[in-house]
This record gives sequence, structure tokens and C-alpha cells, in this order.
Amino acid sequence: MERRKILLSEDEIPRQWYNVLADIKMNPPLGPDGQPISPDMLAPVFPMNIIEQEVSQQRWIDIPEEVLNIYAIWRPTPLIRATGLEKALGTPARIYYKYEGTSPPGSHKPNTAVPQAYYNKVFGIKRLTTETGAGQWGSALAFACSQFGLECKVYMVRISFDQKPYRKTMMQTWGASCIPSPSTETQAGRDILAKFPDTPGSLGIAISEAVEAAVSDTSGNTRYALGSVLNHVMLHQTIIGLEARKQLEKIGEYPDAIIGCAGGGSNFAGLAFPFVLDKFNGKKVDIHPVEPAACPSLTQGPFAYDHGDTAGYTPLMAMHSLGHTFVPPPMHAGGLRYHGMAPTVSQLVVEGLLDPKAYGQMATFEAGLLAARTEGIIPAPETNHALAAVVDLARQAREEGKAKVILFNWSGHGLIDLGSYEKYLSGQIKDFDFPAQDIEDAKKILAEYPKPQIIRSR
Amino acid sequence: MERRKILLSEDEIPRQWYNVLADIKMNPPLGPDGQPISPDMLAPVFPMNIIEQEVSQQRWIDIPEEVLNIYAIWRPTPLIRATGLEKALGTPARIYYKYEGTSPPGSHKPNTAVPQAYYNKVFGIKRLTTETGAGQWGSALAFACSQFGLECKVYMVRISFDQKPYRKTMMQTWGASCIPSPSTETQAGRDILAKFPDTPGSLGIAISEAVEAAVSDTSGNTRYALGSVLNHVMLHQTIIGLEARKQLEKIGEYPDAIIGCAGGGSNFAGLAFPFVLDKFNGKKVDIHPVEPAACPSLTQGPFAYDHGDTAGYTPLMAMHSLGHTFVPPPMHAGGLRYHGMAPTVSQLVVEGLLDPKAYGQMATFEAGLLAARTEGIIPAPETNHALAAVVDLARQAREEGKAKVILFNWSGHGLIDLGSYEKYLSGQIKDFDFPAQDIEDAKKILAEYPKPQIIRSR
Repeated sequence: MERRKILLSEDEIPRQWYNVLADIKMNPPLGPDGQPISPDMLAPVFPMNIIEQEVSQQRWIDIPEEVLNIYAIWRPTPLIRATGLEKALGTPARIYYKYEGTSPPGSHKPNTAVPQAYYNKVFGIKRLTTETGAGQWGSALAFACSQFGLECKVYMVRISFDQKPYRKTMMQTWGASCIPSPSTETQAGRDILAKFPDTPGSLGIAISEAVEAAVSDTSGNTRYALGSVLNHVMLHQTIIGLEARKQLEKIGEYPDAIIGCAGGGSNFAGLAFPFVLDKFNGKKVDIHPVEPAACPSLTQGPFAYDHGDTAGYTPLMAMHSLGHTFVPPPMHAGGLRYHGMAPTVSQLVVEGLLDPKAYGQMATFEAGLLAARTEGIIPAPETNHALAAVVDLARQAREEGKAKVILFNWSGHGLIDLGSYEKYLSGQIKDFDFPAQDIEDAKKILAEYPKPQIIRSR
Repeated sequence: MERRKILLSEDEIPRQWYNVLADIKMNPPLGPDGQPISPDMLAPVFPMNIIEQEVSQQRWIDIPEEVLNIYAIWRPTPLIRATGLEKALGTPARIYYKYEGTSPPGSHKPNTAVPQAYYNKVFGIKRLTTETGAGQWGSALAFACSQFGLECKVYMVRISFDQKPYRKTMMQTWGASCIPSPSTETQAGRDILAKFPDTPGSLGIAISEAVEAAVSDTSGNTRYALGSVLNHVMLHQTIIGLEARKQLEKIGEYPDAIIGCAGGGSNFAGLAFPFVLDKFNGKKVDIHPVEPAACPSLTQGPFAYDHGDTAGYTPLMAMHSLGHTFVPPPMHAGGLRYHGMAPTVSQLVVEGLLDPKAYGQMATFEAGLLAARTEGIIPAPETNHALAAVVDLARQAREEGKAKVILFNWSGHGLIDLGSYEKYLSGQIKDFDFPAQDIEDAKKILAEYPKPQIIRSR
């Protein structure tokens, strides 16, 4: 039998996450005064055990037993050879995907939702607030909170809330509450609505609302949880790449190219960072984050200090950014509608260790449909961005006659996103124009902030 | 670490299905003349390789390599100990579930869709027609046909079509077409619509339409595929129980009770039949098919000869049935809205080897919500029936202080059924009255048919 799937046993699951901060130097986050912030300044937002993880330089960090116990519901996830896709493309490339859609909410997001809920619980927190774009992160945190008996409140970007009504039901089924953002419940939401009553919302706005809701609870029982961007989120997601590396080792393969879609950067980093470590140690591998052409932070945005949210509540972080006032067009990969990019991912791009790509949404749905019909799994619209790059690379391998090994992250299934497939299949989806003017405007705002250093870690 | 998940490696997947026909005697299917039908009479409906499997008495049947190769996308499936549910119920019972929701369409249905598409392809068939209730089967066949390059047309019960618009999109994404049933495309559909223009439809009606569409294609390129009831379908599903038995063996457990929801019987039989074989060999185990109280074929329907479809196109089969004219109320577990029950399952009930139970839909959603919040996976509304029985049995074990081992089939996730959870959470779901009068009416029709023998196989 053709070997299509490589599994790890339940005993082979990695017991530690990989922390890329041990291997790169970073520009520090800055406070309102332009000075590096201290960990305790984040204490109203996150519990101290997570803040410690956020700034830790330790290369390997133990995964708590309680987290492994919940990971076991769906991890280790399978690594699958995409023989159907290879055949359809007539490529000599060997394509493997790490499939993260087997988790209860259907994406990679619980990899960090579970430890975040755990650390908050241990710290004595009773209630978490968060934002969600496509709904994957909000669902994941709702699931994780139900496992630890925490309350959970989710601010969901309005366009996704409207496009995907069942996401709200999913969170409610797990006991969480979910409202569209911008809402009238927060000052940040009210300010935006006053200026732009018809705004589709954005992750940046929803983050402002969720942070405000957390810090304004004077009981001290509420904290905020973020589904991407921050160092500890990337850390938790490395379970993906660590498993994948073990799985490829089992069959004596090593990737020539690694691909993941990138919005805030978490599923990409989760797969890629363990291989970045190999790259530090001399391995040769091309690593591609793939973003929407209509929200091109890595390929068009400057490397600059910027806020993580629209209202400017968060510290300034050194990252590739389109500017925190940029509202991405209402494309269907809601999880990629973010103005910035994880500082760790951004730093690795600055250092030339990653090679980002961008695709319009038509190309991504075309690749997604091909994958659904050849590999059998309907991909999340976010994953379709990775697939567009995979298809290009596999075709290139055919032209060059090279048996390249391509590894990509199938970050989630699209069963909650069938509304977008319906629109695509009925010809109602189009590419959005490249928002050149918006980006120029954003750059002007970024010009007011301190400039990050261009650091070469090695 | 508390061991929550038991996996099989990709090499440990069973290579043969178990055929219960080797171990029980059955009343033969009858033709319109009241005489046993011969295999060639089914040739316009099914390809001969499937008909041979339908009547085979061979105990173990090899799974083709091509089928194993596609099973590998999601099989072997995990066996998970429901420690969260156990804790919530305060039960000494050890509860395990076999999780079939990891398949691309999210249920157990591809276990038979894939071999059915394969055997049709091998036989030279180009196009399959089928019916679907909740949409799980139609999606599964659409997925399987896309893997083998077959055309696929699905007649979907109207109430489910309306309740779950994204099911259609799912099938289209895999390249299939899907229309609501009854439709005006077939004589059977037109007849029903003339009599009952507002009918919610039923599996029985949709089967009539799909069979008619297959046999009326005079090119000979079209056949029909059924997602439950028939012997070969039960056969293919036994991969579930065979895997589960291996997984329990690994940890030295054997179930005291086995539970699965039952509409046509396929997910139940898939888990249970390998343990029925153990029972023939002297093992003691209680086995419970669980059906909706509003569609109680096993607990209220007589064991009788009846048609599998509403129009009476299919042979007469000896089974527990509410009568082929019975249209179940529009409850949310669409996959359980079927008037009959697999002849094999029915025969085992007649022989006293199975102990069926029935639950109203309120109790099933209550159990489903508890499971979602404790085990983390949102169950399909069909699975909620199994869960209602599991909860009862686990509470009983608590009262008796017995550390019973309970195994059940978590037949699918509910991510495409969130509309029903929304209705449940907002108080819009109720129990349907027990359809006593409808059943009396149906019995009158059944009284006209030949009577099956009451057979004791041993």
C-alpha cells in the first residue's frame, strides 16, 4: 500500500515547546513613553505566568501535563502525503501536509488556547476576553475555557459574525458569549462606530475592545487572551512543527520548502519555527509565509514600531505592519485580516530567513477547490493561501523536473466556512484591489513612531 | 499523565471487514411476487460486485488496497476515554468513545461510501445517485466519488436541505450535485408532491427518487448507492468496531455495554457487530441501539416484511419497521428519520442479542451539550441519542457503585448541525409526540405483506 499517512503514537507527542527567542535578538516592545516596557506593565492584561513565558529566553519549555491531557483529545495530528494533489498537478514533488483540522473547533488555534486557559486558571483568573476574526480563535478559546471552567467573552469582527452565524452558536455551545465588534460595550467600539457606523470591523478593533473589557474589570478576575502575534502564542504552536519533524524523520524525509498561511503568524510559525532552528544549525530549507495580496503586511508593509490594535492600547511592537488604522477589505479568509504580523516572524523576515509570498483570493479558492477534490478535505479559506503557494511550487518543480519535498500546514478545515465556498462556486467572489493608497496613509502614521533597529541575530 | 486516547498505528488498521451473515440466519428479501429475489434482479440498481458482497456468507472479507489507501486520510480513528464526562457525572463507570468525526465530511459514512464508489468504479460505472437525510451520507458519497472520478447526484430530504443549506455547498465543493426531495425530477417525487405539497420529505421518499433516477438511465452507466440498511453497508462499517476492539485490547479493557445511535443502523452495527461475534463466542456484553422516541422502529415497530423506500421500489425486507408510508416528524437528527431498520440489526433484536432504547430529542440535546462542554467535541445530533443512553447508564452505574466499562460510537461532529444547537440553546426545540396512531396505520399496511419467520440462529 502506498503510504499516505504518518502517525505518532500518543507516547511520541513532544513534551516541550520550542522558543525561538533563545535564538534571535529582538527589538523590545515600547510603552507610551517610547521606553521598553517592563513585564509588570502587562499585568492588568495577562497573568504573570504568561508574561514570564512571553519574555522567556529559554529554548525548550515544558508542556504542562494538564495541557498534554487535553491536547490528547486530538493530538498528535496526522502528517499526510498529498498523493491526490501530486497526481492532479503531475508534479515530481513530494507534498506533505500537517493536518490541524482534527481539533474540536477544526483548526490549529486550540494549541495555544488550551495552555492560555490553563495558565490563567492556575493564576486564579475566572474570566477571559478575546477577539476573533474568522471565528477559529474565539471557538478555540471557548472550547479551552469550557475544559477549565473559565468564563469566556468573545468580540467577533462584524463581517465574519455576519458571514458565519454558526460560529457564535459554536462558542455558545461551549458556554461562551460572543458579540459582533465594534460593539457599544466598550469606549473603543463606540468611538469607531461614531466615526464609521458601517465598518466591517477588523481584528485590530476587536482586540481593542477585548483588551479594554479585560483591564476595566476592577475585580481583577478578568484577563485578556490573544490568538496570534505574541511570542507565547508562537511558542505554543511549535507543537505542530515539532510533531511534523518527528513524522518526516520516521520516513527519512526532510523538506526543501515549508509553507504556511500567515495573518498574525501563528499557524505559520507553529510549523516553521522548529525548522528555523534547523536552519540556524546549518540545514537548507526555504520557508514561505503566505499572506493575502489585499492585506500584505510582510510583502508590502514596512518593518516599523506599531500598535497591535486599532485604538492603540497595546505596546508598540517592532513588526511588519500596514498601520494599525488599516482596515483590510472584507475578504473571506477572516483569519488573515490583520494589519500587523508577529514580531518574531517579522524579525525572521528582516533577517532574510523567510521568503514571504502573497496571493489574491481567487487564486486561493481555486487551489482550495483542487485540494478538496483531490485530497478529500475541504480547507479553511486561510489554508487556501498556503495551498496557492504549494500549487505554484509544485508546478515549478514539474517544470524543473525536481523531486522537491514540500511541507505545508493544513491549518484547519472549511466546514464552518462553506458560505464562502458557496459564493466562490456561484461566481460571487472577486479579487480585491491592492490597497496602495491605504498603505501610503498608514506609513505616514508609522513615521511618527520610533524606528526599530535592523538586527542580524547571527 | 492520565491516558485519554488510544491510537492504532497506520499498520495496525484491520485488513478485513467482519460479515455478520456468516453467523446468523436471515429471512430472504422478497420480490413483487412474494418469492425470494435472485441477485440478478438487483443488477439495474447495484453493480454485481456489490450484490455479491450483499449476499456473501463469508465471515471475513478483504478490504481492497485502494480503499485502505483512502481510509488512510482519516483512519484509524482514535478511541478516547471520556474522563471529562465521567467526572461531570460522578460515575465510577469507565466511558470510552470511538470518534468517527475525523473523516473529511465529519462522520462514519465514508467508511462505506469509499468502498461503494470503488466497487462501482471497478465495475465500469460512471455515475452514482443517492439520497441523504441529515446530509452526512450525501456528503460522504460526494467525497468518495471525487476520489474515484465518478459523477454523483444526491436527493436530499427537504427539511434537512432547508435546515442545513451548507450541506449542499459541501457536496458541490466535492463536485456533486444536490437537490431537495421530493423533487419534480422523478415520478416518485411528483406523485408525493401532488398528494402532499408541503411534505418535509423523508429518507424513504428520497430513496425512491434516487433508485428511480439510477434505473431509468438506459445507458447503463448509472447505479444507486445506499448509505445504510443493507448488508454490505453494515459490513463496511465494521472497521469501526474492529479497530475499537483492538484499541481496548491494548489497554486490557473489555466493554460491559456498547451503545450506538440507530436510524438505518449503520454506525451502530459498525461498532457493535464485531462484539456480537464475541457474544456468539460466549462473551457477555449488553448492546444497545438507541433511536428517537419519535421514530421508534426497533422499540415500537413490528418485525415485518416491508419496503425500504416509500414508493415501494425496493424488495421487501424482513425488518423492524414503522411502515414505509410513515413520515417521521421534523426532528433535528435527520440521519435517524427512517421508517425501517437494517435487516441484520432487526434480526439480532428478534434473537434477543440487542437491547434497543429510545429517547426524545430534548434529552438527547441535553446529553449532547454536556458532552460538548466536558469532552470538548460538539456531537452530531444523531450521536446525541447514543450520549443520552450513555449518561443514563453511567448514572445507573453510580447508583449501583459499579465500575462498568461503557463503549459508544461518537459517530460524527455537529459542526454542520450548529443550526439545531442554536434552536436548542434558544429554547426552540421540543419533544415530538409519540406517533401512536401513525404506527397503527402503518401496521395495517404491513399486515398485507408476507410474514417473516422468527428465526433463532443458534
